Amino acid sequence: MNDSVPAYSLFELVERFGGEVVGDGSVRIARVATLENAGSDAISFLANERYLHQLKSTAAAALILAPSARDAVDRPRIICSNPYLLFARVSALLNPERALEPGPHPNAVVAASASVDPTAQIGACASIGAGARVGPRTLIGPGVSIGRDAAVGADSRLHAGVSVYDGCLIGDRVIVHSGAVIGADGFGLAFDGERWVKVPQVGRVRIGNDVEIGANTTIDRGALEDTVIEDGVKLDNQIQIAHNVRIGAHTAIAACTGIAGSVQIGRYCRIGGAVGIAGHVTIADHVEISGHTSITKSIDIRGAYSGVYPFETNRAWRRNAVHLRHLAEMARRLARLEEELEKFRGSRGES
Amino acid sequence: MNDSVPAYSLFELVERFGGEVVGDGSVRIARVATLENAGSDAISFLANERYLHQLKSTAAAALILAPSARDAVDRPRIICSNPYLLFARVSALLNPERALEPGPHPNAVVAASASVDPTAQIGACASIGAGARVGPRTLIGPGVSIGRDAAVGADSRLHAGVSVYDGCLIGDRVIVHSGAVIGADGFGLAFDGERWVKVPQVGRVRIGNDVEIGANTTIDRGALEDTVIEDGVKLDNQIQIAHNVRIGAHTAIAACTGIAGSVQIGRYCRIGGAVGIAGHVTIADHVEISGHTSITKSIDIRGAYSGVYPFETNRAWRRNAVHLRHLAEMARRLARLEEELEKFRGSRGES
Amino acid sequence: MNDSVPAYSLFELVERFGGEVVGDGSVRIARVATLENAGSDAISFLANERYLHQLKSTAAAALILAPSARDAVDRPRIICSNPYLLFARVSALLNPERALEPGPHPNAVVAASASVDPTAQIGACASIGAGARVGPRTLIGPGVSIGRDAAVGADSRLHAGVSVYDGCLIGDRVIVHSGAVIGADGFGLAFDGERWVKVPQVGRVRIGNDVEIGANTTIDRGALEDTVIEDGVKLDNQIQIAHNVRIGAHTAIAACTGIAGSVQIGRYCRIGGAVGIAGHVTIADHVEISGHTSITKSIDIRGAYSGVYPFETNRAWRRNAVHLRHLAEMARRLARLEEELEKFRGSRGES
Repeated sequence: MNDSVPAYSLFELVERFGGEVVGDGSVRIARVATLENAGSDAISFLANERYLHQLKSTAAAALILAPSARDAVDRPRIICSNPYLLFARVSALLNPERALEPGPHPNAVVAASASVDPTAQIGACASIGAGARVGPRTLIGPGVSIGRDAAVGADSRLHAGVSVYDGCLIGDRVIVHSGAVIGADGFGLAFDGERWVKVPQVGRVRIGNDVEIGANTTIDRGALEDTVIEDGVKLDNQIQIAHNVRIGAHTAIAACTGIAGSVQIGRYCRIGGAVGIAGHVTIADHVEISGHTSITKSIDIRGAYSGVYPFETNRAWRRNAVHLRHLAEMARRLARLEEELEKFRGSRGES
Repeated sequence: MNDSVPAYSLFELVERFGGEVVGDGSVRIARVATLENAGSDAISFLANERYLHQLKSTAAAALILAPSARDAVDRPRIICSNPYLLFARVSALLNPERALEPGPHPNAVVAASASVDPTAQIGACASIGAGARVGPRTLIGPGVSIGRDAAVGADSRLHAGVSVYDGCLIGDRVIVHSGAVIGADGFGLAFDGERWVKVPQVGRVRIGNDVEIGANTTIDRGALEDTVIEDGVKLDNQIQIAHNVRIGAHTAIAACTGIAGSVQIGRYCRIGGAVGIAGHVTIADHVEISGHTSITKSIDIRGAYSGVYPFETNRAWRRNAVHLRHLAEMARRLARLEEELEKFRGSRGES
Repeated sequence: MNDSVPAYSLFELVERFGGEVVGDGSVRIARVATLENAGSDAISFLANERYLHQLKSTAAAALILAPSARDAVDRPRIICSNPYLLFARVSALLNPERALEPGPHPNAVVAASASVDPTAQIGACASIGAGARVGPRTLIGPGVSIGRDAAVGADSRLHAGVSVYDGCLIGDRVIVHSGAVIGADGFGLAFDGERWVKVPQVGRVRIGNDVEIGANTTIDRGALEDTVIEDGVKLDNQIQIAHNVRIGAHTAIAACTGIAGSVQIGRYCRIGGAVGIAGHVTIADHVEISGHTSITKSIDIRGAYSGVYPFETNRAWRRNAVHLRHLAEMARRLARLEEELEKFRGSRGES
């Protein structure tokens, strides 16, 4: 993202991030790249054995490798236990965030009673409501709306077009991508026999530190108490989080997942894409859920859970799917057959 | 949402909303709260038996209870047939919407030919197109775009960042949450053998009165005629409604549901989250559909429908899923076994 | 969308678009309409046999029909092999896009170093970043954000509230609907044993020519290389495309589909709504996938694929679903029964 970053030698990189240099440690690195397209100023990495064949042909100046691949190549390299992690750190060093342009853009609208740190950048056509607070070194992108009495901490980045409703709280070092909506009303309705009556949603959304929220993800405010996203949670795009959900620290959730009201998710969970979690379900710490699975009841035991119907050709599918509707009957027929065979056996004196 | 609301006695509440006071009806209520966190100025409610144990320990000043729980506690209380509904009404009384600041914000852009009621509020950086109309006491939030010749009725609230395309019509007392898009082109394409040709989408979206539309929900304009959302429909977040859909009055749909083109949904339906409804399907009035179900053909009879694959541990799942691909064969083998047992029986002279 | 378009005779239409006139070719057409609601200045079409009965009663001035329906009606008509395609072309002629109002709106914000063609229209409260380029006759709607060094080609239309991140490239004749987000960070995270470390996403999004992108669709930038949407791709609303995906030319994807990282989709595929495609999967050209299917491994052979669980009444569903959890056991019992029957047969001297 920045073309004039300085270069670093392998020695400098291991001094910062650990690992062991094998080969010429004075090689200087200016960028990160894939094995396939790395040039002579780039470092690449191997985290997945299936790209091993690309190691031979890469033109990368240097590589980040696990001990098991130490001798798979003779280019300069850094050996470490988690190449992807070290790569992430090298990449962050080589691709620093662009420096802010502090202060509000002339076309931004900041309420008189809002409190915006002078080191924060407020983008064009952004709107900061009455009583809202924006912390130091935080970037509020173009067209972002920060509601009345809402607050964003330090070193956070809200990209173009994010909406934060009144009273919602966002911590430090939080990244929110475009189109995300924080604090819209939860879906709270009472039925009077003829029509729906809206239940006011008087809770807020509270987002901890070091959280990332993907593009067009929505997090509803609580009905009475707050919806809570704890520290270090990572949410991908187009996730829906309903009112009064709590997501435990360091849980990561892939795109398009929907989480219904009052769900409690533990810490360090990993939830795949397009998962659905039914209302009031509780999920323990360290649970992994495969993509496209419907979670319809609580999970108390850590482990991996799945329920993804396998696809087939239309022809095979049609042949199988018709029997899905007759599973109960099939189970009954099977039980009866077992029973009758048993009778035959009995009538013949067999055991 | 508002800290200086007046307080109401239980007597005043039942006078407005019905119910029977048991205990000291002069107790004054300033806020609503959960059983667990209610303070001495708060009213709480019990709508679900599973929170019955919290009744004993609540510090709420008063409670809203069903007749069955009348004697479960001796605090001041209102007894009524639908505690959640009465609670909704009390909460609305205690949490009134913030008063508008009428007129367009200096940074709003209102076309000269637009007609905006003087009691409407137009937020910062909102854009009201030529010929558009905005009714009395309606709130247009920051950054909202109202297209050319579009119209919004009275007492409606469009939150920050809503987009309404040209010509679309929104009724009275409608709430639209941030990021919702009303009237984008439907997905109409004709294939010429080599490439897709766009079919102009010349219909509009017409939204009735008392509708609520969730954050980042999208409702496409009709191809030739209009997409219609009837009165009292409630849509949660991230719902997709394709062109020429009609949703009957007072139907409620949970988040992440996708409704394909020309679907007709009846009145008073309740549709769960992440449901998919295939194109041209018709659904009768009073149909309930469980979350995550795929509706692939019309439903003519009111009732409850479901099709949610139960999740399991990965290990159990893998063991079962492999047989899903062999269901047709299993059904055949079962039928053959029945037939052969029958033959055995026949050969032994059994019935 | 435009009330004062000129009218065209059937003769003029077939001269432009092909087909054969049957009946009075001098009839003049001013608009397109459905069979049901067409008036005396409208042309309608029949593309689906199931609307054949409406042909009898339509008041349309003229019709577009396939050869098989040539004699189904005696109104003036155009006979052609693909009525829907010809209809699309007639409709585009009769519903031209509104002419642009060139130049930036006074409330738009265009960086000094941005390069905006003088024939482009930049809407109210749009923001064009430093070094960005906007081509001739392109419409940038209200509140759109174009990031630093991003580029949009000629004759494109970005509707209100679109966000294009830094460095992303959009071709000619591209339509992007409201709320779409192009180039947010991919979901790249490395785990350090205690917390997630962000992997900088330094690739871009590159979008070819003649692409359409639906409302609130999100396309993430690549991690190291670019996410690529080739020419003629059509994406419906609320689609999620993760980092480093490549979608081949002229592929069409319906709403709510989610495509995980590094997926490669071929050319001329047709993918239904709410499909999920797992990471690193490759899909051949000319593959069709039914709505709501989970694609969990690569598809190398063109054809149609499906995996949609059939819905049922709740009662039938509950009866069947319980056996889904016992499929492995059912398969085992079945095999054992076959074996035992075989033994009986053997003991009776049967073959």
